[in-house]
Amino acid sequence: MASDHVPQPGPQPVALDAMGGDKAPEEIVKGARIAYEQYGIPVVLVGQSGKLEDTGGIPVVDCSEVIAMDEDPALGVRRKKDSSLVRSADLVRDGKACAMVSAGNTGATMASALFRIGRVKGIQRPAIATPIPNLAPTPTVLLDSGANVECSAGMLAQFAMMGAVFSSARYGIDRPRVGLLSIGEEAGKGNSQVKEAHEIIGGMDDPGFDFTGNVEGRDLMKGAVDVVVTDGFTGNVALKALEGALGFFVDALMGAIGQDESTKAAGKVLFEHLAPVVERLDPDSVGGAMLLGIDGICIISHGSSSAKAITSALRVAHDLSRTKLVAQIRARAGA
Amino acid sequence: MASDHVPQPGPQPVALDAMGGDKAPEEIVKGARIAYEQYGIPVVLVGQSGKLEDTGGIPVVDCSEVIAMDEDPALGVRRKKDSSLVRSADLVRDGKACAMVSAGNTGATMASALFRIGRVKGIQRPAIATPIPNLAPTPTVLLDSGANVECSAGMLAQFAMMGAVFSSARYGIDRPRVGLLSIGEEAGKGNSQVKEAHEIIGGMDDPGFDFTGNVEGRDLMKGAVDVVVTDGFTGNVALKALEGALGFFVDALMGAIGQDESTKAAGKVLFEHLAPVVERLDPDSVGGAMLLGIDGICIISHGSSSAKAITSALRVAHDLSRTKLVAQIRARAGA
Repeated sequence: MASDHVPQPGPQPVALDAMGGDKAPEEIVKGARIAYEQYGIPVVLVGQSGKLEDTGGIPVVDCSEVIAMDEDPALGVRRKKDSSLVRSADLVRDGKACAMVSAGNTGATMASALFRIGRVKGIQRPAIATPIPNLAPTPTVLLDSGANVECSAGMLAQFAMMGAVFSSARYGIDRPRVGLLSIGEEAGKGNSQVKEAHEIIGGMDDPGFDFTGNVEGRDLMKGAVDVVVTDGFTGNVALKALEGALGFFVDALMGAIGQDESTKAAGKVLFEHLAPVVERLDPDSVGGAMLLGIDGICIISHGSSSAKAITSALRVAHDLSRTKLVAQIRARAGA
Repeated sequence: MASDHVPQPGPQPVALDAMGGDKAPEEIVKGARIAYEQYGIPVVLVGQSGKLEDTGGIPVVDCSEVIAMDEDPALGVRRKKDSSLVRSADLVRDGKACAMVSAGNTGATMASALFRIGRVKGIQRPAIATPIPNLAPTPTVLLDSGANVECSAGMLAQFAMMGAVFSSARYGIDRPRVGLLSIGEEAGKGNSQVKEAHEIIGGMDDPGFDFTGNVEGRDLMKGAVDVVVTDGFTGNVALKALEGALGFFVDALMGAIGQDESTKAAGKVLFEHLAPVVERLDPDSVGGAMLLGIDGICIISHGSSSAKAITSALRVAHDLSRTKLVAQIRARAGA
């Protein structure tokens, strides 16, 4: 069942798309250097070597092309075989890298992983798993957060399995609690795919997770479940709604703090205690989302990733490459 | 085209379901009294008169039944013809009330309005319009926020029209900006219904609003559009995600403030300036959601409504009954 090209835990570096992201290549290279120098993560930069400043001894795989942030993903990947994204995926496929990381065009990152590395056999569609911070010790993983705008019940059931495997591998959760996102907690609530998925997931034999049934939008940041399953349309809207709400609140709080000297002093007192929460909410600390269902590790970082975000993503990618994540998804996909 | 039973601006009272809501009937009656005594809103309480305390001279329409919060909506409305909800809707249908308000079973409120008052001719399905507070002068109206789990493109286009009419009637927006909720701003982004709805709405001749194209989840609290259109599944998830995020932030802030004497003092200083935002976010101030597409005014209040929430809802209901809201939806439905 295991295919030849699957990276094994070992000395392979993480392939980092040096050209992807709003702050590429400077912040990307900087993040790679921190990961390498401070955390000993082996990295290979994939990019146009002429455009990369001092890489501090990190090896570079030179490529001639770049898929732009706004370029058509499928077309870009098909046409630009020597792009930093396609070459990164090829390194994973060929076992020369243990994982790939990109802060570039999300669609093109998915397409390069899908076309060049390929799906795990038996998995219908890959899904993006995004960790959502909350006040519990570990984040809640939301998937699909944007890869598939339309999802069948069978796909949702596979997302439940993949999300649980990811939650175990990434956060050490022994038996993840998995919820199905709907508009009411009762089993009969939701659209037709959700109702059908509820039956499929509820009927799974020894799924390796605890299915808690339906959860609602307000449960996303409650920390009461480890994984929330939904289609990529709803997931993406919900994720961005959370971002917007937090942005609103931060703006309101900063507005109140900025009023005068007394409010500024009060803000200073409180910030000391809010700092751990802010750190937890900081997208740069989360380490990016993961494309699950690919026959390898592919981390999708935010387009606005700073060096810190890239360092986090490289650490997560390297850590995950040493787990049985992909092997377990392969085993559970049962193909 | 106008039907006989449509309430006209005038002396008719707002029919208030005295038995609906977690805090019924005490808080409901209290809210009615404040609306009547402080704001001069004519109200008729619909409920089991034996269970109502001093109503302060507000007339009561006695009924023998109550549809419970967790009862099957359609079944409840069909079987309990003498329930407070069905009787409230009948008062609107018969022109004896200018509007109905309930904090009870949401599904049953919709069903009683739909079955007893009826749809506006030409409207495929009613939708719940929920005002979302932001830092702009007026809220953004999200619809559908839960009435229809599955929506065709044609329904979404009607929601755009109804949301715009509501935004004008409720907030005095002359030419509302209407966005279509999707997972990318470009016209081609989204699921098949959204793509089709984009074409229909974009092609409308003199719709009475400005179609701004796709918006994303993070735009819900930005205040950049007056109306956001989506299906009831996505809308409900997004709305509850916002509630959850704000709950998270409030918990985090209260946690920081509660640390010690110095943080408590700092919190006190800041709360003075946060109060207007908190007031704006308070669901009790918003005045409830409105069921649009019904041939009358039906306000759906939160199940946990306090007296204050009921007072707000009664004021909104009464105000709206004096606008051309329903007449304009009727005219634009063009049937």
